[in-house]
Amino acid sequence: MSAETDTIEITAYSWIPPFARGLVRDLRVRWTLEEIGLPYRTQLFDRRTEQGNSRIPEQPFGQVPAFRQGDVRMFETGAICLYLAERSDTLLPSDEVGRTRAMCWAFAALNSVEPAVMQLSVLNLFEADKPWAGERRPMVEGMVHDRLQHLSDALGERDWLEDRFTVGDLLMTTVLRNLKRTKLLDDYPNLAAYRARAEARPAFQRALEAQFADFIDDDQERMEA
Amino acid sequence: MSAETDTIEITAYSWIPPFARGLVRDLRVRWTLEEIGLPYRTQLFDRRTEQGNSRIPEQPFGQVPAFRQGDVRMFETGAICLYLAERSDTLLPSDEVGRTRAMCWAFAALNSVEPAVMQLSVLNLFEADKPWAGERRPMVEGMVHDRLQHLSDALGERDWLEDRFTVGDLLMTTVLRNLKRTKLLDDYPNLAAYRARAEARPAFQRALEAQFADFIDDDQERMEA
Repeated sequence: MSAETDTIEITAYSWIPPFARGLVRDLRVRWTLEEIGLPYRTQLFDRRTEQGNSRIPEQPFGQVPAFRQGDVRMFETGAICLYLAERSDTLLPSDEVGRTRAMCWAFAALNSVEPAVMQLSVLNLFEADKPWAGERRPMVEGMVHDRLQHLSDALGERDWLEDRFTVGDLLMTTVLRNLKRTKLLDDYPNLAAYRARAEARPAFQRALEAQFADFIDDDQERMEA
Repeated sequence: MSAETDTIEITAYSWIPPFARGLVRDLRVRWTLEEIGLPYRTQLFDRRTEQGNSRIPEQPFGQVPAFRQGDVRMFETGAICLYLAERSDTLLPSDEVGRTRAMCWAFAALNSVEPAVMQLSVLNLFEADKPWAGERRPMVEGMVHDRLQHLSDALGERDWLEDRFTVGDLLMTTVLRNLKRTKLLDDYPNLAAYRARAEARPAFQRALEAQFADFIDDDQERMEA
């Protein structure tokens, strides 16, 4: 058994290209920890030197974040955030129906919405200068729009995907943030408001500040995050 | 609270194009239910008519499967399988370290490996006839290889990703099955053996049989699954 009194340690980057700042996935874990009020410390890696190494300790896919508390060693933000959410009622309702719905949205964020968003990110980051990028874009944006339209319909006029903020909303917000350099959310005012509502939470703001504070050359880029 | 004695009902397809048979995601839930020995019944939809409708009841993204037992209504195979796995020691160790590792691999399957595999599936299914498909392929296959190499290293010579079969192995196997019409697994003999080992489990075979038995025009295609 892990002792829940042991110090929580997560891995994060001390340097990563500016375009990725505020989007690195340790933000999900930091936000979760801020929401439930647990302190943590970070073990930092410089992305410039780690690329040659390709392996972050305790993370099979060579990425951040990993999570450690006592004997519990975890990777995958979905697993870490869900595990932490289980510790209190703050992010995961204790009743069976509410708990299972929050689990559904947590997986929906990472397995139904993020893969489509990731295809668009790959196009924008690695293929934008290809002569066929323009031909691919409608198909890729179409996949994202399909997911956003369904998500928008599911959200409707509510504040959150269920009747209160859960770990599902937390993860979904971080996925929608990956669209911030596109205009796709403009077509879904309720999703844009949903993302802004979540980002306005004090715990999110503290998590974002903390991620930027760990960059060795942090400067005005924080303002754009 | 839901009554765990209520009948379990899942949604699935009565018709879907042959290339997708044996790969539809209700297989994950059927397999989980077979592993832990819970009976279920199916509510079937014909993909040919549902495409116009674009919405399967109780599934926000218009897909199968959805899960229902009493008051518990779930979607997302990761959430459903993890929730079911919690009910016994069969797929989720009861000790904290074992349980959290299984959670990590469940999310790794769906958020670290499947999104890369999905990019390759999109290329093979929707872009294979494009003049630039050949130019895209190395980049897309490279993303998949990166994930497979890390996964192969993590598995090593063990039978399963941790010291016993868990819901993480179950989900990972279904993701690797999406590569079956490619040769990418040939470079990772331990992963190919891992997939075959999992597919040899009687519970998997029963689940696959059950998925095919629900197709209205099931015939020799089953042999190719």
